[in-house]
Amino acid sequence: MRAIVFDGSPGFRADYPVPSIKPGEALVRVSYAGLCSTDLEITRGYMGFKGVMGHEFSGVVQECAQAGLQGKRVTGEINIGCGECGYCHAGTGNHCPERSVLGILKKDGAFADYLTLPVKNLHLIPEGVSDEEAVFIEPVAAAFEILEQVEVSWEDKVCVLGDGRLGLIVSQVLFLAYPDLTVVGRHEEKLSIVKKMGIKTALGVKDMGREFDMVVDCTGSGEGFADALGLVRPEGCVVLKTTVSKRGGVDLNRIVIDEITVIGSRCGPFGPAIKALAEKSIDVSPLISKIFPLEEGVEALDYASGNGVVKVLLNVNGSVG
Amino acid sequence: MRAIVFDGSPGFRADYPVPSIKPGEALVRVSYAGLCSTDLEITRGYMGFKGVMGHEFSGVVQECAQAGLQGKRVTGEINIGCGECGYCHAGTGNHCPERSVLGILKKDGAFADYLTLPVKNLHLIPEGVSDEEAVFIEPVAAAFEILEQVEVSWEDKVCVLGDGRLGLIVSQVLFLAYPDLTVVGRHEEKLSIVKKMGIKTALGVKDMGREFDMVVDCTGSGEGFADALGLVRPEGCVVLKTTVSKRGGVDLNRIVIDEITVIGSRCGPFGPAIKALAEKSIDVSPLISKIFPLEEGVEALDYASGNGVVKVLLNVNGSVG
Repeated sequence: MRAIVFDGSPGFRADYPVPSIKPGEALVRVSYAGLCSTDLEITRGYMGFKGVMGHEFSGVVQECAQAGLQGKRVTGEINIGCGECGYCHAGTGNHCPERSVLGILKKDGAFADYLTLPVKNLHLIPEGVSDEEAVFIEPVAAAFEILEQVEVSWEDKVCVLGDGRLGLIVSQVLFLAYPDLTVVGRHEEKLSIVKKMGIKTALGVKDMGREFDMVVDCTGSGEGFADALGLVRPEGCVVLKTTVSKRGGVDLNRIVIDEITVIGSRCGPFGPAIKALAEKSIDVSPLISKIFPLEEGVEALDYASGNGVVKVLLNVNGSVG
Repeated sequence: MRAIVFDGSPGFRADYPVPSIKPGEALVRVSYAGLCSTDLEITRGYMGFKGVMGHEFSGVVQECAQAGLQGKRVTGEINIGCGECGYCHAGTGNHCPERSVLGILKKDGAFADYLTLPVKNLHLIPEGVSDEEAVFIEPVAAAFEILEQVEVSWEDKVCVLGDGRLGLIVSQVLFLAYPDLTVVGRHEEKLSIVKKMGIKTALGVKDMGREFDMVVDCTGSGEGFADALGLVRPEGCVVLKTTVSKRGGVDLNRIVIDEITVIGSRCGPFGPAIKALAEKSIDVSPLISKIFPLEEGVEALDYASGNGVVKVLLNVNGSVG
């Protein structure tokens, strides 16, 4: 099959073997896949991953033991726990120390004609959510994770730092719960996407006071955390949503002196994400900057790291045109 | 009056002016004062403080407008808010941006014959709590702050990192709420103080797994935070209790990947601290390593920074013998 494989550098392969399914797994024919900053980090060596890249996808079940699933449109949760440990038994297999993660850790990913996942990881894509939109279910779920982790008060002043892929998704999701939301970014044209949805925007953190109850760092940059600590009020909350290779100059004493709570946030619940997309309470289609065919996956990775680009998709076996 | 004054280096002064009280304030004759790691940090330039050092004390009200307070034994909360801002109105003057802090920020402290504090900052010392013990009310209150900030489940596995002054206080306070508590330190003789109270202890973090629901960093060292992140389970909580001049090699991505919550914790509620000392549910007297007369305050600071030393007090106008 065709695949974008990372083995020190990313490359297109026409002859990668089709994965075979283990008990409980399904073989999924990928329709579309999404490029995420984590994919870009992986090309820089993050997690030491080798194999088929990609973890955001929509597809069609090709083969699986469970009746009624074949031919269904699906997306999937990306963490695969061992099924045996305390985390897996408690339903928090996302944190299983023996887990594999689609396209990130010990498991071939979605930039390929086929992938395999346990059936229990799959979610049906409802009518009214396109194959392209369904690629966003995973990152939208990650945004909903924040609402699972923090106490929501609709009066809170909230700031999302970053106008990239994740920032524009997180801001839309948080705007459902927090009307007083400001997105701080560096690109007028990216900010305009959420500005049209009624969300307040600001160019740069300069001259902003320490007045936010919650600041969510979606910058993916080393300065994001320091900026967040500079914007959050004493006793406020900073959510770290992105891993970065290096964080610069963070004065962690501020956490102590101002009694800040810092919350790390990773993968999230697919249910609310699918519901929000089906009900059109969030709109991800304006985030799609460009769609590349799978063969041009390496070029797509290059393109996705460019300035001004938001979301890049790969058309693997999706509709033509 | 006599005082230990920091003006680039700490020194004893016999001729420092007695402070005069402003409306709402009381003049307190200091009985005993305690040396805290923050005082040692101040001698290294922390907060850029200049003036009379010290913020832990017991004393007797010498002069104040409010009836009935004169001659009473008191200790006091150390943050003095502006009284006007949103934080002060919300009762969280500890975080008032215009605050002064006794012996730490813009306010002469307790290593002197007299100090002044707003009457509303004062707390009566109950019978049965000695002047020496009462010096510990402030740090014990800081330990109780943790219980105000986190959700307490008595089944949680908790680790206190650090067997210094603060670690041995925090561990006693947390042991009231968490029976499964382990203190990790580097000094057998210091650990033995809490071991006698039935608290589990360990020498060094080597070979310890990532199994704690909560880890409290009381090390005051640059490595404490990294050690804490290495001991806390995924989705667990790290409490930062000490400011340090430099934190080394902390992989903050761990916070994101393992969805750790980091909570900064500073000053705390005096009420539960006074109650715990009065009821003898915690015992601070074994923590006193040595008591110096005020005149030897500079020597006391030296001594307090030594290895194996726990709590050092200054006898200012306390009982003789």
